[in-house]
Amino acid sequence: MIIDIHGHVSAPQGLYAWKANQLAARGAHGRSPLKFTDEQLENALRGAPGVFGRAHLDQLDKHGTDLQLISPRPFQLMPSEKPSKIVHWWHEECHNVIAENVRLHPDRFKGVAALPLAAGDPVESALPELERCVKKLGFVGCIFNTDPYENSGIEPPALSERYWYPFYEKLCELDIPAMIHSNSSHSMRTNYSTNFILEETIAVVTLCNSDVFKDFPNLKIIVPHGGGAVPYQLGRYQAATWARPKGERFLDRMRKLWYDCVLYNPESVEFLIKIVGADHIMFGTECPGTGSHLNPETGRSCDDVRPSIENIEWLSAGDKKKILEDNAKQVFKLKV
Amino acid sequence: MIIDIHGHVSAPQGLYAWKANQLAARGAHGRSPLKFTDEQLENALRGAPGVFGRAHLDQLDKHGTDLQLISPRPFQLMPSEKPSKIVHWWHEECHNVIAENVRLHPDRFKGVAALPLAAGDPVESALPELERCVKKLGFVGCIFNTDPYENSGIEPPALSERYWYPFYEKLCELDIPAMIHSNSSHSMRTNYSTNFILEETIAVVTLCNSDVFKDFPNLKIIVPHGGGAVPYQLGRYQAATWARPKGERFLDRMRKLWYDCVLYNPESVEFLIKIVGADHIMFGTECPGTGSHLNPETGRSCDDVRPSIENIEWLSAGDKKKILEDNAKQVFKLKV
Amino acid sequence: MIIDIHGHVSAPQGLYAWKANQLAARGAHGRSPLKFTDEQLENALRGAPGVFGRAHLDQLDKHGTDLQLISPRPFQLMPSEKPSKIVHWWHEECHNVIAENVRLHPDRFKGVAALPLAAGDPVESALPELERCVKKLGFVGCIFNTDPYENSGIEPPALSERYWYPFYEKLCELDIPAMIHSNSSHSMRTNYSTNFILEETIAVVTLCNSDVFKDFPNLKIIVPHGGGAVPYQLGRYQAATWARPKGERFLDRMRKLWYDCVLYNPESVEFLIKIVGADHIMFGTECPGTGSHLNPETGRSCDDVRPSIENIEWLSAGDKKKILEDNAKQVFKLKV
Amino acid sequence: MIIDIHGHVSAPQGLYAWKANQLAARGAHGRSPLKFTDEQLENALRGAPGVFGRAHLDQLDKHGTDLQLISPRPFQLMPSEKPSKIVHWWHEECHNVIAENVRLHPDRFKGVAALPLAAGDPVESALPELERCVKKLGFVGCIFNTDPYENSGIEPPALSERYWYPFYEKLCELDIPAMIHSNSSHSMRTNYSTNFILEETIAVVTLCNSDVFKDFPNLKIIVPHGGGAVPYQLGRYQAATWARPKGERFLDRMRKLWYDCVLYNPESVEFLIKIVGADHIMFGTECPGTGSHLNPETGRSCDDVRPSIENIEWLSAGDKKKILEDNAKQVFKLKV
Amino acid sequence: MIIDIHGHVSAPQGLYAWKANQLAARGAHGRSPLKFTDEQLENALRGAPGVFGRAHLDQLDKHGTDLQLISPRPFQLMPSEKPSKIVHWWHEECHNVIAENVRLHPDRFKGVAALPLAAGDPVESALPELERCVKKLGFVGCIFNTDPYENSGIEPPALSERYWYPFYEKLCELDIPAMIHSNSSHSMRTNYSTNFILEETIAVVTLCNSDVFKDFPNLKIIVPHGGGAVPYQLGRYQAATWARPKGERFLDRMRKLWYDCVLYNPESVEFLIKIVGADHIMFGTECPGTGSHLNPETGRSCDDVRPSIENIEWLSAGDKKKILEDNAKQVFKLKV
Amino acid sequence: MIIDIHGHVSAPQGLYAWKANQLAARGAHGRSPLKFTDEQLENALRGAPGVFGRAHLDQLDKHGTDLQLISPRPFQLMPSEKPSKIVHWWHEECHNVIAENVRLHPDRFKGVAALPLAAGDPVESALPELERCVKKLGFVGCIFNTDPYENSGIEPPALSERYWYPFYEKLCELDIPAMIHSNSSHSMRTNYSTNFILEETIAVVTLCNSDVFKDFPNLKIIVPHGGGAVPYQLGRYQAATWARPKGERFLDRMRKLWYDCVLYNPESVEFLIKIVGADHIMFGTECPGTGSHLNPETGRSCDDVRPSIENIEWLSAGDKKKILEDNAKQVFKLKV
Repeated sequence: MIIDIHGHVSAPQGLYAWKANQLAARGAHGRSPLKFTDEQLENALRGAPGVFGRAHLDQLDKHGTDLQLISPRPFQLMPSEKPSKIVHWWHEECHNVIAENVRLHPDRFKGVAALPLAAGDPVESALPELERCVKKLGFVGCIFNTDPYENSGIEPPALSERYWYPFYEKLCELDIPAMIHSNSSHSMRTNYSTNFILEETIAVVTLCNSDVFKDFPNLKIIVPHGGGAVPYQLGRYQAATWARPKGERFLDRMRKLWYDCVLYNPESVEFLIKIVGADHIMFGTECPGTGSHLNPETGRSCDDVRPSIENIEWLSAGDKKKILEDNAKQVFKLKV
Repeated sequence: MIIDIHGHVSAPQGLYAWKANQLAARGAHGRSPLKFTDEQLENALRGAPGVFGRAHLDQLDKHGTDLQLISPRPFQLMPSEKPSKIVHWWHEECHNVIAENVRLHPDRFKGVAALPLAAGDPVESALPELERCVKKLGFVGCIFNTDPYENSGIEPPALSERYWYPFYEKLCELDIPAMIHSNSSHSMRTNYSTNFILEETIAVVTLCNSDVFKDFPNLKIIVPHGGGAVPYQLGRYQAATWARPKGERFLDRMRKLWYDCVLYNPESVEFLIKIVGADHIMFGTECPGTGSHLNPETGRSCDDVRPSIENIEWLSAGDKKKILEDNAKQVFKLKV
Repeated sequence: MIIDIHGHVSAPQGLYAWKANQLAARGAHGRSPLKFTDEQLENALRGAPGVFGRAHLDQLDKHGTDLQLISPRPFQLMPSEKPSKIVHWWHEECHNVIAENVRLHPDRFKGVAALPLAAGDPVESALPELERCVKKLGFVGCIFNTDPYENSGIEPPALSERYWYPFYEKLCELDIPAMIHSNSSHSMRTNYSTNFILEETIAVVTLCNSDVFKDFPNLKIIVPHGGGAVPYQLGRYQAATWARPKGERFLDRMRKLWYDCVLYNPESVEFLIKIVGADHIMFGTECPGTGSHLNPETGRSCDDVRPSIENIEWLSAGDKKKILEDNAKQVFKLKV
Repeated sequence: MIIDIHGHVSAPQGLYAWKANQLAARGAHGRSPLKFTDEQLENALRGAPGVFGRAHLDQLDKHGTDLQLISPRPFQLMPSEKPSKIVHWWHEECHNVIAENVRLHPDRFKGVAALPLAAGDPVESALPELERCVKKLGFVGCIFNTDPYENSGIEPPALSERYWYPFYEKLCELDIPAMIHSNSSHSMRTNYSTNFILEETIAVVTLCNSDVFKDFPNLKIIVPHGGGAVPYQLGRYQAATWARPKGERFLDRMRKLWYDCVLYNPESVEFLIKIVGADHIMFGTECPGTGSHLNPETGRSCDDVRPSIENIEWLSAGDKKKILEDNAKQVFKLKV
Repeated sequence: MIIDIHGHVSAPQGLYAWKANQLAARGAHGRSPLKFTDEQLENALRGAPGVFGRAHLDQLDKHGTDLQLISPRPFQLMPSEKPSKIVHWWHEECHNVIAENVRLHPDRFKGVAALPLAAGDPVESALPELERCVKKLGFVGCIFNTDPYENSGIEPPALSERYWYPFYEKLCELDIPAMIHSNSSHSMRTNYSTNFILEETIAVVTLCNSDVFKDFPNLKIIVPHGGGAVPYQLGRYQAATWARPKGERFLDRMRKLWYDCVLYNPESVEFLIKIVGADHIMFGTECPGTGSHLNPETGRSCDDVRPSIENIEWLSAGDKKKILEDNAKQVFKLKV
Repeated sequence: MIIDIHGHVSAPQGLYAWKANQLAARGAHGRSPLKFTDEQLENALRGAPGVFGRAHLDQLDKHGTDLQLISPRPFQLMPSEKPSKIVHWWHEECHNVIAENVRLHPDRFKGVAALPLAAGDPVESALPELERCVKKLGFVGCIFNTDPYENSGIEPPALSERYWYPFYEKLCELDIPAMIHSNSSHSMRTNYSTNFILEETIAVVTLCNSDVFKDFPNLKIIVPHGGGAVPYQLGRYQAATWARPKGERFLDRMRKLWYDCVLYNPESVEFLIKIVGADHIMFGTECPGTGSHLNPETGRSCDDVRPSIENIEWLSAGDKKKILEDNAKQVFKLKV
């Protein structure tokens, strides 16, 4: 069984038109009701002509993905917009669409929430919706943005700060994993896509140099896109901790985290597995998305990541299965 | 012939989903192409189920409106967003959709541009698109926002300042009128709808106390929504100028501007005409829009404004015709 | 009996010279003592040559006003100045002069306090002086500024926010009405006079869309200058609530507030009464003040508002009396 | 003949009431006309009961001052207020009152202007009024504030910066001296009076460590209040320049400036003369003002500074005359 | 015995190189260990070639100073740098070096701490290190900066505000004196050396006009550099309080503070003693430092201050001994 | 011959103590002279006990490095400090020490400048010193910081903006390469070391998506630390350009840049070469520095990078020589 832990919802255009309306009205219209027909929802998943629907289900079929965990599209989540209530409404509507998609395709999708943490608000403000998603909608995990200000020059609290602890406590209580995933970027130098990588890099370095895992030994944090820059820049961080006893060096601490393999070239996927080890990696594609472009040399979509794993000669079948299936089942406690 | 000078475009949801995408990407995706089929465009005008389409054409039919001038939806125009290029792209796409609607319904619609003036930019930056709309797309006027910062606490230049003069020059050169219309509002106290009224009030007072009409005697400025608060608060402003010679008092200067009658109760429409006089008022409804709610006591839509004019007993047929038709023809130089 | 609920104190120049001194010293001189002779006070009321004294008593006589409620001159109240103590001192000195005026003319004047709320301070900081005015000085009401930052780009809390609740509680406890009245304006686009209208507009819309009157059913709020833009723009707000049951629509909620008729043209006074109804309107003139200019066509001062009421043919004598006398007696609990 | 180079105008209260009004209106009333009768002007000079008039002429008589140079009250000059035009209007009205006082008492007073430099404006904006004062009103010098932001946390350009050069050029062209004198202070720690001393200290240190006197050898700058802290702290600055050749040390450079002796204890006056020397000191009292309090031990007003000079045993009669008369005649080119 | 209460540590260059490293790393390297050999420490005190070591011990010998109280170099203390932890580390390392110097020269030096108060932090955050210095390291007093923002435009709390009270309480509890001493200055107009004088001026004025000494009668505050500008500008402050009863006038309050005589010209030292009196002055030199330049006319170092005291003819031997020895013994409770 | 293109100067502690002094004085001391003896310089290079000297020459010997290009220590360069002149002084002194080191060891070292670009200044302000280094001191290249604000929340101009063009022009004119290297980081989340990686990532993405290499075909830009995150995240960027013709895809553009191999684990060095190719990689170690820690498993210093290259089985001898020697000779035009 192939489990892709990193997918985002394909929704009807009406969802995004509703968002545009909310942003324009800044909440003045109140929370206008939003309801889609099954046909509209299916059209979005099948890639009926429109903006975002890129034949989601077809691509999963073509790649042989059996189950995909889907969360809201991160770059659309707008946590730095005001007032906070439109941030909350928007997350909730995205979750509702995800729940609908899971209802329509219970074997194909599982829901993953996005922490509705508006910039400047206490992390506690986001927890009720997280709880609703898990307890009411049956979601199996969440994503969260380490910088709700969306790269606008205001410094958010580091992941090592007490600010985040109520969230970590809730994750442990609900026993779900959380994947780091930043949203948009206000910077004129750095777009949202590159900012994903930067935030992941900062997050891994911060967590590995902190007491977070001492304070929350059961916390499950996933770093997508192969861990940002960290596996590749490992030497820099490892050098500073070679003097420590084994088990406390940087790489040892990196292995308290999980990584997905959303890396769109085979060399990088192989490199990630070599550095971090199969025990801490899960299959992911973020398909459809940034990687859905076709590689003209292979004729395959870049986010068809599975061959990059399966073709690694030195990787055992058992390790391949861990990455493609077993680790996800364990971390997300999937009953499939 | 009934000419409604104040309408906004009804567009396919895809337009707004595209906007949501641009706002999320902050221009990182580049300017993705946007193209609608005639069927999609017609569906939007006919009110096929969706967010904004409220049976636009049906309502015009029902109200007996022969011709409507349509501009982009003001509260969606987002001029305070960054980078400026997404503001420009968005205005241009809105204009393109309007041009398509005019193509489909050349007897029903005329196009009106929105000045694509991004907050903090010089007014000159917005003029090329204005020129494209008039010269290439055949638009007959424009709307503009007196506060591109969208009520965010940064003070824009007053309409009396030199900042705006290149725009006034271009208006005179193109010989088109410009309607004041603010966009959204970042304020938590004042939503965009109330902010329309506040900006119009500030604008009328500023213009009437300035040299703008001395410097641009042929400038044609239209104030919508009956002129904000000014006609009702006339005494306050008139009192300060009673000592001036006739022709220079506040009300005399107010009559250098034009007003529409987008006021959703008959008493106010009548009051406006009484104060300002039929020579300076044009029929407008902003239909469909804020006023599309049904008045349960009359069973009519609030933005069915025509009876409010036609039912005024003391108003001559000639004056009614001026308001409903002639003034618009003259100001917009309509050839219909 | 004619009761004018909206007057402001005419004080000796020394009061304003003292203010200039405090602003220059920023409190460094301490609170220098301020004492006026009865002659000085009378001169100010009689319009002896000087800056502000515009023959106050003569004008009341000429207009036939029997009793006027007088508060500090709002545009002078400077709540955004620092340190807060000079704001407090200033309000207190203004109140003292008012108390002196009432002592000299007990049948002509009643005192109305101004809430000494310095920008950025909690509303509780202003309540002791309010209490002094009512309990020690015998004042019958108060005015308050909804934006102590004086239109400087910092957003004050909306009237619907908890920030204001201690003030509302105190108003109910003291059983006095409060009139909204903004002060000066730092904006280069909008002077204080226009800002009065804008703040009143925001206030009415905010209160009518809030739970304030559910939480404080006995609260008495007065909106001056005929309610800003709201009666004239009624349709816009009413449209959004036509779907509600009777009693909950916008106009129903507007009638939980009171309005004065400080509008300097007869058409607007009549319009106000038509829209809001005589039960919720009180006579006011703000005389002497902005409206003291002479209308050359009538030869009368613009703030001689009474004829605008008395000349309305369709208004019953009873309703006229309500406006001119009875409503004020009830709302301010006047024993005259 | 006794010449006091440091006096400030005593004006009718109406002047300050007018200022309070301008500050409240922020220029919205336009520049209301201001005119005083000779009786009002004389009352102010004679100390008729009021806020600032402290028997100005009587005190000059009592102290034996023959001629006093009077400028606007510095702490009232408000250069950090907005809009700039009210700063200009205010300076101009102060100058007009001074001109009137000189007209009434041509042997007693000479006028000194205050540079109307509004915070953030280029120094050129202040020069036309300076020129008017000298050429039209016959003023003999000026005062200027080295920090138009009035100690509000924004750093003004140092006196050594090019920003000030057009002013220095104009001073040389008009051949008049300029006295440093700061205005009010927004700081909660430091009031305007202490801020005078701080700004003077900064100014002397800046000028003595700059090229200003190389670039403008004929520039005449006066430092009031005995030079702030500098003469007393001389050692600190001198130490750093002992290694330089004679003529270039700190004290040598200090002697390119002029000082007045507005110091309200005899020891300090004597100390100043000892350090700086009689050739660079002019008599001044700032009377009436901060020093007008009575010293109960001597029964004399503190600003009766003359005895502090005359009683110095070691100071020659010639040096005393320089300080009390000759230096002022030379620096201000007085023809008396 | 000659006791100099105002000296600063002479430390090995490695201390400052370590600081440069911490500032560059912003704490990222952690607190790298810092340890000096006795030889390095002695070299610094003996003026081995390097940046700051200016033959410290030789100069004390030459000046005949028996005991010097040494604190960290104030202008190096960088309390406005971030993160706060590098401010703390730096103060602690400076204190450790001082403790080492005292260990090496127990008869020559006593330690004085610097309050490690990082800008924006509560004053309580600095007290543990103060306590360590007194209780663990045997220090006899402290210095503190009245503006931890280092003259950067942010206003610190005035010394009269409650903010400082926990510090005053701790000083009383430990029974040690505190000397005011600002650090660096971010201003482009005012360098750190002049800023010392400005901050001292503000501090004396603030304390003398406050209730601090009523609330803490046993508080011992020392003002260095002869009290800034205040003794010289005494008249200005005294004038305002002549009306008060004896004992409450400004000068009376000034005598609740202590002053040192770090003034590098004899006239100023004599002036200080004349104004303030020998009972409130302590010998100080800040040697080596700003005053270590040679006066070519005397051939002596400017900071050889002792002759300036001893040469005062009118000063009694007893008073000289108070200044040079007794006052320091009493205030610092020195057992020597 | 082994050429290490990425080394930083080992300087006497006095250099850093001088920096600490300048930072504390903010330029008030002027530019105190700085001169080191050859013994001091050699001690620093030989690792005499001190803060930064880590046996620089010994390590080069041990690693077999024949020639190292040395520039100032980047994290110490403080371009965000004010005033700009201390930034300039500091860069100049660092360059002078480097020139001295090259003089002492002409066969071992070549000088590389650091662009003295103070935050907020135009890039032209930094060019004269760059020219001095190349023309007077014989330096062969430079490093520059893409964010002179040092990660403080202010957005610097992107490398694609016109701001940088005068610098690019100068590089082409001088025909020298420039290596990207950020300095310190004000962020509390991201220390300077991680910020190196982030800035390099942003820089590569920006340059590859810009017209810079079209406008400057001869520009030579080097990205250290293996190119930040980009080679590892290649797929993400390549995916977006697969549709372009060959030669225009992201990887093609990446090959217009040069990379060093300062990566402290062999897998990453190998990965870099595999992705980018030997033609665009130069040997570098940044030794001594972050990587100087010993790997206990190999017993070797982490920055002994050469074996990571030499041990790659699949890499030809010619390619190894390119990386270790030939590319550097060509890019830096080394005559050795």
